[in-house]
Amino acid sequence: MSLLVVGSVAFDAIETPFGKTDKIVGGAASYIALASSYFTQNVNLVAVVGDDFPNDFISHLNTHGVNTEGLQVKEGEKSFFWSGKYHTDMNTRDTLTTELNVLGNFDPIIPDSYQNCDYLMLGNLTPKVQQTVIERLTKRPKLIVMDTMNFWMEIAMDDLRKTISMVDVLTINDEEARQLSGEYSLVKAAAKIQEMGPKYLIIKKGENGALLFHGKHIFFAPALPLEEVFDPTGAGDTFAGGFIGYLAKTNDISFDNMKNAIIYGSAMASFCVERFGTERIVNLSNDELKIRISEFKHLVKFDL
Amino acid sequence: MSLLVVGSVAFDAIETPFGKTDKIVGGAASYIALASSYFTQNVNLVAVVGDDFPNDFISHLNTHGVNTEGLQVKEGEKSFFWSGKYHTDMNTRDTLTTELNVLGNFDPIIPDSYQNCDYLMLGNLTPKVQQTVIERLTKRPKLIVMDTMNFWMEIAMDDLRKTISMVDVLTINDEEARQLSGEYSLVKAAAKIQEMGPKYLIIKKGENGALLFHGKHIFFAPALPLEEVFDPTGAGDTFAGGFIGYLAKTNDISFDNMKNAIIYGSAMASFCVERFGTERIVNLSNDELKIRISEFKHLVKFDL
Repeated sequence: MSLLVVGSVAFDAIETPFGKTDKIVGGAASYIALASSYFTQNVNLVAVVGDDFPNDFISHLNTHGVNTEGLQVKEGEKSFFWSGKYHTDMNTRDTLTTELNVLGNFDPIIPDSYQNCDYLMLGNLTPKVQQTVIERLTKRPKLIVMDTMNFWMEIAMDDLRKTISMVDVLTINDEEARQLSGEYSLVKAAAKIQEMGPKYLIIKKGENGALLFHGKHIFFAPALPLEEVFDPTGAGDTFAGGFIGYLAKTNDISFDNMKNAIIYGSAMASFCVERFGTERIVNLSNDELKIRISEFKHLVKFDL
Repeated sequence: MSLLVVGSVAFDAIETPFGKTDKIVGGAASYIALASSYFTQNVNLVAVVGDDFPNDFISHLNTHGVNTEGLQVKEGEKSFFWSGKYHTDMNTRDTLTTELNVLGNFDPIIPDSYQNCDYLMLGNLTPKVQQTVIERLTKRPKLIVMDTMNFWMEIAMDDLRKTISMVDVLTINDEEARQLSGEYSLVKAAAKIQEMGPKYLIIKKGENGALLFHGKHIFFAPALPLEEVFDPTGAGDTFAGGFIGYLAKTNDISFDNMKNAIIYGSAMASFCVERFGTERIVNLSNDELKIRISEFKHLVKFDL
């Protein structure tokens, strides 16, 4: 099934306790498109970059089967840039620089060939832009998944609430679920957030796994315990890409199949954090993915 | 199979965001003995209290099938007392008072009838006292499980390392695993700690579940997402009690059966936190436990 991915395609400069990068390619949609491309060859990207963005990476996306017709390249402008530094625990980070550049006035134009998409993944972006994308689709996709972050809760809560009310699945982390709902208990938070619109809520807990809520049903997916978490940047986006990619491939949006999709998302994320940026997820083999899925199965299997 | 439980039997005064208690019965061995009594009727307790300790609770332990022949009651002395206050996140707490009292010079006398026990659970105590218990057993138990805490890492590391080297299973939380090993990655920490002696390591992560490490094998048990965590006091001890109780009942110390034991331990702990102190685990029904185990199964079940 066809998948539309919208989000940032950008530059990051990352510092972790293990090392430091110069400007490397990042952005939510880069991770989502790459991760989902392991599941479906019908990925359509809507994003914006400046003329400083490397053609190599765009070609690379195309090699992965990602359609970049909807990737706008703004002449004379610069790509979005973020730099940050992770603390020892890798769960917290300081933002050092945010340069919006082309993202400041991003108008998400949907090419005609992208219309009638079956699945829509809205990567973290201004809620208003996410909403515009939904409104510009002539037919509502079978499933709309939306990622967001605390930043928008602080500066654009009304827009955010409106956009959230229009989607089927919301993915946020535990702190964001608490902030959005005003509830400390994640079970209570999940109930309140489902009342805001999304029938499904995924709460990402980083190295502590992820929870899927749907009505009274709860599914928990662990994160794979790793020898080393090298760089967590993009892990949440890679998770989302694996999740929606698997759903688009199987074209089954039942709660049971969403569980499988979350395991695939978690597996993709477990690769992502093993290297800087997109380095680890640009060239995964089917066998590597198969082995990792099997590790997830063993990790939680018991015979009661 | 017979189980020997050693640890504190004491008073706690607890403050959480939900309320506050006067002095109530607590102590690691109280929780362990109660939790394990749901699995085996052959639980033998070694502990010490003052003459201020309520006979009611001792009778209650007896009703649960716990043998209290090894519970020393010191005339004219006071029981161990701890008071603490939990923060909103329930994962951190401040200790307000610690009065060692009878625990200050606890000599763990093992009644003859307790000898030849099959399983030994060493609740959190001075490492030297834990070691003395092992030395006083005429026959080494089939399995020795030991709990400890960061406090002993700070003031008695040499004793602690010695005691750890004598046990089969060590249970600590994630921060303690990091402190003990000097490794941030829990996978690396687990490898180092296994080199110290224990062939099995359980890392407790509170609301984020628990990990069991054995060589290259890893098992992850989730915590049940709860509407409300009312009071986390004793959750780790209750977990340990369910774990060792299930092993003593089934008399199977294979890695696969330890997985099941961890699920039972997690289920017992999920009850414990629903009320203050031991309130919730003194009168559980078999049906309640069965339903909760089924909830754990559904929580992590997927069909890949």
